[in-house]
Amino acid sequence: MRPSKRAADELRAVTLERSVSKHAEGSCLVKFGDTHVLCTASLEERIPPWLRGQGRGWVTAEYGMLPRATGERMRREASSGKQSGRTQEIQRLIGRSLRAIVDLPLLGERQISVDCDVIQADGGTRTAAITGAWVALHDCIEWMRARDMVAGKVLKDHIAAISCGIHGGQAVLDLDYLEDSDADTDANFVMTGSGGIVEIQGTAEGEPFSEEQFAQLLALAKSGIGRLVDLQKMAIS
Amino acid sequence: MRPSKRAADELRAVTLERSVSKHAEGSCLVKFGDTHVLCTASLEERIPPWLRGQGRGWVTAEYGMLPRATGERMRREASSGKQSGRTQEIQRLIGRSLRAIVDLPLLGERQISVDCDVIQADGGTRTAAITGAWVALHDCIEWMRARDMVAGKVLKDHIAAISCGIHGGQAVLDLDYLEDSDADTDANFVMTGSGGIVEIQGTAEGEPFSEEQFAQLLALAKSGIGRLVDLQKMAIS
Amino acid sequence: MRPSKRAADELRAVTLERSVSKHAEGSCLVKFGDTHVLCTASLEERIPPWLRGQGRGWVTAEYGMLPRATGERMRREASSGKQSGRTQEIQRLIGRSLRAIVDLPLLGERQISVDCDVIQADGGTRTAAITGAWVALHDCIEWMRARDMVAGKVLKDHIAAISCGIHGGQAVLDLDYLEDSDADTDANFVMTGSGGIVEIQGTAEGEPFSEEQFAQLLALAKSGIGRLVDLQKMAIS
Amino acid sequence: MRPSKRAADELRAVTLERSVSKHAEGSCLVKFGDTHVLCTASLEERIPPWLRGQGRGWVTAEYGMLPRATGERMRREASSGKQSGRTQEIQRLIGRSLRAIVDLPLLGERQISVDCDVIQADGGTRTAAITGAWVALHDCIEWMRARDMVAGKVLKDHIAAISCGIHGGQAVLDLDYLEDSDADTDANFVMTGSGGIVEIQGTAEGEPFSEEQFAQLLALAKSGIGRLVDLQKMAIS
Amino acid sequence: MRPSKRAADELRAVTLERSVSKHAEGSCLVKFGDTHVLCTASLEERIPPWLRGQGRGWVTAEYGMLPRATGERMRREASSGKQSGRTQEIQRLIGRSLRAIVDLPLLGERQISVDCDVIQADGGTRTAAITGAWVALHDCIEWMRARDMVAGKVLKDHIAAISCGIHGGQAVLDLDYLEDSDADTDANFVMTGSGGIVEIQGTAEGEPFSEEQFAQLLALAKSGIGRLVDLQKMAIS
Amino acid sequence: MRPSKRAADELRAVTLERSVSKHAEGSCLVKFGDTHVLCTASLEERIPPWLRGQGRGWVTAEYGMLPRATGERMRREASSGKQSGRTQEIQRLIGRSLRAIVDLPLLGERQISVDCDVIQADGGTRTAAITGAWVALHDCIEWMRARDMVAGKVLKDHIAAISCGIHGGQAVLDLDYLEDSDADTDANFVMTGSGGIVEIQGTAEGEPFSEEQFAQLLALAKSGIGRLVDLQKMAIS
Repeated sequence: MRPSKRAADELRAVTLERSVSKHAEGSCLVKFGDTHVLCTASLEERIPPWLRGQGRGWVTAEYGMLPRATGERMRREASSGKQSGRTQEIQRLIGRSLRAIVDLPLLGERQISVDCDVIQADGGTRTAAITGAWVALHDCIEWMRARDMVAGKVLKDHIAAISCGIHGGQAVLDLDYLEDSDADTDANFVMTGSGGIVEIQGTAEGEPFSEEQFAQLLALAKSGIGRLVDLQKMAIS
Repeated sequence: MRPSKRAADELRAVTLERSVSKHAEGSCLVKFGDTHVLCTASLEERIPPWLRGQGRGWVTAEYGMLPRATGERMRREASSGKQSGRTQEIQRLIGRSLRAIVDLPLLGERQISVDCDVIQADGGTRTAAITGAWVALHDCIEWMRARDMVAGKVLKDHIAAISCGIHGGQAVLDLDYLEDSDADTDANFVMTGSGGIVEIQGTAEGEPFSEEQFAQLLALAKSGIGRLVDLQKMAIS
Repeated sequence: MRPSKRAADELRAVTLERSVSKHAEGSCLVKFGDTHVLCTASLEERIPPWLRGQGRGWVTAEYGMLPRATGERMRREASSGKQSGRTQEIQRLIGRSLRAIVDLPLLGERQISVDCDVIQADGGTRTAAITGAWVALHDCIEWMRARDMVAGKVLKDHIAAISCGIHGGQAVLDLDYLEDSDADTDANFVMTGSGGIVEIQGTAEGEPFSEEQFAQLLALAKSGIGRLVDLQKMAIS
Repeated sequence: MRPSKRAADELRAVTLERSVSKHAEGSCLVKFGDTHVLCTASLEERIPPWLRGQGRGWVTAEYGMLPRATGERMRREASSGKQSGRTQEIQRLIGRSLRAIVDLPLLGERQISVDCDVIQADGGTRTAAITGAWVALHDCIEWMRARDMVAGKVLKDHIAAISCGIHGGQAVLDLDYLEDSDADTDANFVMTGSGGIVEIQGTAEGEPFSEEQFAQLLALAKSGIGRLVDLQKMAIS
Repeated sequence: MRPSKRAADELRAVTLERSVSKHAEGSCLVKFGDTHVLCTASLEERIPPWLRGQGRGWVTAEYGMLPRATGERMRREASSGKQSGRTQEIQRLIGRSLRAIVDLPLLGERQISVDCDVIQADGGTRTAAITGAWVALHDCIEWMRARDMVAGKVLKDHIAAISCGIHGGQAVLDLDYLEDSDADTDANFVMTGSGGIVEIQGTAEGEPFSEEQFAQLLALAKSGIGRLVDLQKMAIS
Repeated sequence: MRPSKRAADELRAVTLERSVSKHAEGSCLVKFGDTHVLCTASLEERIPPWLRGQGRGWVTAEYGMLPRATGERMRREASSGKQSGRTQEIQRLIGRSLRAIVDLPLLGERQISVDCDVIQADGGTRTAAITGAWVALHDCIEWMRARDMVAGKVLKDHIAAISCGIHGGQAVLDLDYLEDSDADTDANFVMTGSGGIVEIQGTAEGEPFSEEQFAQLLALAKSGIGRLVDLQKMAIS
């Protein structure tokens, strides 16, 4: 039995609340159980210098955590003067994931900056962030479409993410903090609405894992991401 | 007529929602109209080095803004590598204000760190932060009291804050962003529940102001803070 | 009786020595008793990026303290790698105060940078800095006028500053370090030559203060600033 | 045909040269073709603060690149003042990989710091680094064993890493820079000598990839890592 | 003829004014013509960690320049967030020079921090700093002696410094800024009162220099430093 | 007898290996005994801002040390966030030395960046770096010449460097780490192929040194640098 009493392939309660920000062109408050991430998509007319003149746009992401999003208060990164390796790793992952499903030339020479700020953390913040960021990005693009700034299929597909792990010898879906702390293997999967894989990150926390175990995690992830994509579709409809 | 259509002495809709964080010992989501600040109070068993061995506790505050809390996305301070002068000025103000009404020896050799993170900004973030921080601090102290960590009147009084300004020649209370951008004078007042003044900050944005004008601002502030303290009392009851 | 033996409304010996720098366009060594601040005004042909093309100039200020300006040696900010919150707060105050009395369009698209470096500290460094900075700024503008770079009333008024506080239950003017350490309330006032208020900062160090007390402080400040403005007039004549 | 003319499952020429440093307790210069990484293992009697008193040791890793290791000179991280997100991501990966095969309690309360410095880069620097770091770590532990500082099976297994990718529609092993720049999918695998998986990182650079493609990459990696482990065995024998 | 009209072996007007700081244990305002450096010596009961328990003291130095000490305003190092290479080079030189003539065991486990802040610059700031720092250091040690903190010959000798250069083909002493900008070779010498050499730094700015030229510079320096030591003796008598 | 058993005027085994980098326009691995420095010269089409439009090029240098180049592992400068004063001092010295023998106008508006990275340290890293950097710079310029980017005598002369010191009362050449740690005086000399002096840095580590001693060091350096220049000539022929 999982500590969370969930079935091995059971997601936490997931909600995607749109238009939660008065200012941002697109926004989404995503909740995976007690993990709450505020995602805002901001349209910016500037573009990274190395992209200028290529007729393509860019999507980038930043990730942060409020100091008391966690059980123990963590030092504020703005105060310690730098972003941790973990923060940078996660925001690079979110950015790559979103770019995988955006038609950058259709965006024009503009940048969309997606901020994913963890208001409350209980495991799986990066996967919640990617899942919610897609909704914020979608709404930002629709905002632009309504102003004739873009046309065509700028968003090529959905993108969503979920964690899986081996806990107590069993492959389980969507680990919360307690389960994650106690898991042997921790893996994050990012997949498109049509089932293509965009990112796989698997790490043995204790014992190395086998190919068979990894195949089980992948199967769980596929099913979970399918359900997240359905929730995204409902959210934007 | 004010842009906000409010009467000169009319506060925005103010709400103080308690216990919004799963982890923090005390927390409050404060809203002054469209200005939303999440305040968490974290109990920490460590104390600043220069206070050790004096049998007194400490209360400190940090302030932050999500990058898209504002109309234009601002650069994330964690990414630029330092907190702006404005951020530091505000967090020093919040800390001083809270310490003014805490009996530090009764706290014991512990620190309460109050984080005030602006989720959405529309003027008056520092005054909303102080007003909400008091509720978070109150709940943190009650959390400690329930565990026999403190006894007695640790919180000596209420503390709340409000901005006033001279807009279109008229002294007005609780300016929103639009009013603030267009005001001649901007002042922030921090007062206790019993009417004592803890902080006054008045700045002429355009023309210098007169003693009479300042007296009007102070009178407005006094009345507004009285109402905020009433709301705090209702929130914790 | 004040520790300094001064009457409640008595300034320390104040001197304003002009042209103390071989290089700066304007300079003033200001002394408020044992508080000595070197103020230099430097004309720069560049302007902050966000001001370009608006036909207006800018005045900015920086503040620093030599490491052994104080009783205990403090760490050099250049060595610790950042300016403290206090330093930033003060230099923002000085800059705002000076801009309040400069006709920025008459300055043309140029910046005057005023550096206020505390050579020796004994309380009231920010108020001495503002008072001396006005003289340095005045001389810089006269330097420009002599070269036909500006014309007209670029300096709209005098600006000067003084601290007041409640010490031993009594409102007193121009606190030195010893008095300041022991005061219940500490307030800084910045006013123009014509008596307009530009900045008010009042902080309760111990007990909150009342409106009546604040009114006494304001009255003391008004009288003190009047005398400082007279000294500025003598200095530049 | 691959640009490198290698067969799809063909490694570059790999060499592992031991004892290349006069000072380090263990060292290895690893070459994967034109990718050259100097790995040194340094024994340190100190331990991270959060590990103290637990009777366990620690293995950590740092990664760097000489500025002209690459085709275009890159800015020196020591001069830009921080390590890039990519650098931090890689050194966290190397550290995790090494810790997966070290019996930390057998190490005692000591830390081994492994530095992996890229002297010349041509793709696959992180996988070369992990493969060479194992040899340096091995020799450091033997150095300790010879001095009776450790006993028993401190190194539980081999660890090695390889990249795979989909290039021109074909799954290929050990991509060089040219192949990597042009690949649709890029994956890094870290596995033990006994075939357990420790890390999997797969990223779609262009189109998302399928489960079948990922299975092919994993099979290639398994075979390649087997050969790398054989080379490690020869190197230390 | 030198631009300064001085004879080749003629020093600028040198003054050493003691006890210029209310707070510092020793202080000296040194002027070499228009180069003015404020030197303060601060006694600190702490010692660098690597010196603890060895029964020896330490002397260290820091160097800074006010932003408008120079003809063009320079960026404040506290604001740019780091000390330049030049600043660090100079403060290391001052520290080494002073330590050369201090009996560190006689100092006990204490540190004297000497701050050399350039109030106004006109060439030769590092040599003026060393020459004035000796006086501040002397007075700090006498302050300690008066309190029975030290005994014996803590200061083993005088130390002073001067610059020389080849200007217009001629070896000249004590270059001012104008001469320095136009010199072919720039050299700084640090020597003791008894004529021992402590530091030599010679740099060809344009053409390399010959052994003969260097010998001339050394001879000039020797004579100049002799006169500086005489001035130090007069200053402390 | 020197610890290294070498004669007083005997260099360590010196080798200069060219073309050790696949990417750099010029490169040299220089060894002075166990001191190994990798020097790469990188051609860059950009130039420092303050040089633009003057028709001249620039040569700059950066210096680094691998963390375990030394007996004790040192903290990585990229990780500590800044270059030490020592690093900056050395890289400024290398840059000045190289510029002394380059005809900058002949280079055109381009920069050559020379990176000197210490792979293994055993004393004398800066002098080895300068000696090897000349070879890398030479090859970079020949690379440019072969592409008709430069013509004429861009390199005006050779430049090489050596350390000398007073060890056990005797003047000795080319100190290794052991000798350097135990020397009374440490001096570095940079000279051209035609015997001109470009840099002299002499420091008394213990007792001040005399003019006579310094003359002995200079004579040793002259002879040593002559032999280094011969080795450079052989290396490029």
